[in-house]
Amino acid sequence: MTGPGTLFGIGLGPGDPELITLKALRLLRGAPVVAAFAKPGRPGQALGIAAPHLLPEQQVLRLEYPFTTEVSLHDPRYARDMGDFYDQAADQVAQCLAEGRDVAVICEGDPFFYGSYMYLHDRLSHRFEAQVVPGITGMSGCWTQANAPITHGDDVLTVIPGTLLEDAMVSHLSRTQAAVFMKVGRNLPRIRTALIQAGLLERAILVERGTMAGAQVMPLAQWPQDRPAPYFTIVLVPGRQGVR
Amino acid sequence: MTGPGTLFGIGLGPGDPELITLKALRLLRGAPVVAAFAKPGRPGQALGIAAPHLLPEQQVLRLEYPFTTEVSLHDPRYARDMGDFYDQAADQVAQCLAEGRDVAVICEGDPFFYGSYMYLHDRLSHRFEAQVVPGITGMSGCWTQANAPITHGDDVLTVIPGTLLEDAMVSHLSRTQAAVFMKVGRNLPRIRTALIQAGLLERAILVERGTMAGAQVMPLAQWPQDRPAPYFTIVLVPGRQGVR
Ligand SMILES: C[S@@+](CC[C@H](N)C(=O)[O-])C[C@H]1O[C@@H](n2cnc3c(N)ncnc32)[C@H](O)[C@@H]1O
Ligand SMILES: C[S@@+](CC[C@H](N)C(=O)[O-])C[C@H]1O[C@@H](n2cnc3c(N)ncnc32)[C@H](O)[C@@H]1O
Repeated sequence: MTGPGTLFGIGLGPGDPELITLKALRLLRGAPVVAAFAKPGRPGQALGIAAPHLLPEQQVLRLEYPFTTEVSLHDPRYARDMGDFYDQAADQVAQCLAEGRDVAVICEGDPFFYGSYMYLHDRLSHRFEAQVVPGITGMSGCWTQANAPITHGDDVLTVIPGTLLEDAMVSHLSRTQAAVFMKVGRNLPRIRTALIQAGLLERAILVERGTMAGAQVMPLAQWPQDRPAPYFTIVLVPGRQGVR
Repeated sequence: MTGPGTLFGIGLGPGDPELITLKALRLLRGAPVVAAFAKPGRPGQALGIAAPHLLPEQQVLRLEYPFTTEVSLHDPRYARDMGDFYDQAADQVAQCLAEGRDVAVICEGDPFFYGSYMYLHDRLSHRFEAQVVPGITGMSGCWTQANAPITHGDDVLTVIPGTLLEDAMVSHLSRTQAAVFMKVGRNLPRIRTALIQAGLLERAILVERGTMAGAQVMPLAQWPQDRPAPYFTIVLVPGRQGVR
């Protein structure tokens, strides 16, 4: 009899399939089951990055979010429905592990940096062996795509979720040298207003789909005000310090 | 006649040579000259990570810092001597490029995140073709090593250089959910005091040499007060939010 399988949380990096690490590739290829979160009706970002590396005999387990559109983190439905969803996803993964099969949960970017994998890890790592492989974050992919060194010397960097309220954003911006806004999507108008209030609009850069096919970089000031930003968008404010 | 060479700034990740990306490996192996910053008399961190991947015919160009010990960023010698040093290093790299040879400058972590490569990039990218490859940051390596998810949901993450003054550290800590202290080394006593003042000592984790041989993880509260921290040390304060 074999023991239970191992849970792997594998960071795949920001989008370019060549930005996967040797370690992620080795563990990904060795897992009989490859699991990934995905929105219903969409191919799924992590599955897209992994696609060129998968072998035909690997089983793919899609863990489909209950929402097709973004639901606000402040909506009470969010905490309840997402909690239930992660419980069910954890049960599906646990079943494979209990049958003795390793499961590689593939993640866009780095699993422990705003990654959904954490909700499986929290639920399963005390029952099964779990190993996490870090990945290049989306923000590293974006500042590289923008050719924008983000921090020098003793710059402080603040990473601000786009879900925050405008006043909180302005307060963070007023105390930092460099900033990164994550989860931009439909929060872009509020992020823009906060940057204007902090006097930083001219330094802000919008990066859409950093390192992926169709990547775009644009000064935020030039982004048309009524143009929506896609889910995979980051806004950067590079620092300006350091020895020149 | 061939044209000038291309400058590559290649992120090698946090330390484990298996955490290098496929892209970094391809470009690293293709470069006739591999350049790296290093302290005099030391093997050099980036060279150590790259060692298992280098080919015997590649020329290694060591760019040696003028200081053997850490000099404070606030010391006026620092800005002057480092500026001169980066000028000279850029000249050495420029000479290889002008001779038509590509130069891969290898960097610990991600080149655009507090990396010395930026000082070469600032000096050379307007004269030569330059391409940067992102890498997994030291902090991603450290929170993975510590098995500590760093940010969930709408957590703010603040990255604080250990060179800051104590009051500034306390002020940043009081406004963030998650924090990372970089450049810990001999700044550890000040970081510890700031964490105590912010009431966060119990949540702080010290990671030494994350993902490298001899990595260590310890609650900061258990770290002996008189024990110096090595250069490759990060202090983490993981966030605590999110759907559970
Ligand atoms: C749930 S978070 C996951 C972050 C991921 N674990 C990481 O390490 O970057 C999703 C957000 O990351 C950002 N993001 C991640 N990768 C990106 C990329 N390649 N280009 C633009 N934005 C990206 C977007 O802001 C998106 O809304
Ligand atoms: C000049 S910064 C370079 C950062 C690097 N470019 C990166 O992306 O992480 C050097 C600092 O990074 C931190 N660091 C980088 N890698 C580390 C690791 N593997 N373990 C612990 N600390 C690390 C230490 O605090 C060190 O003082």
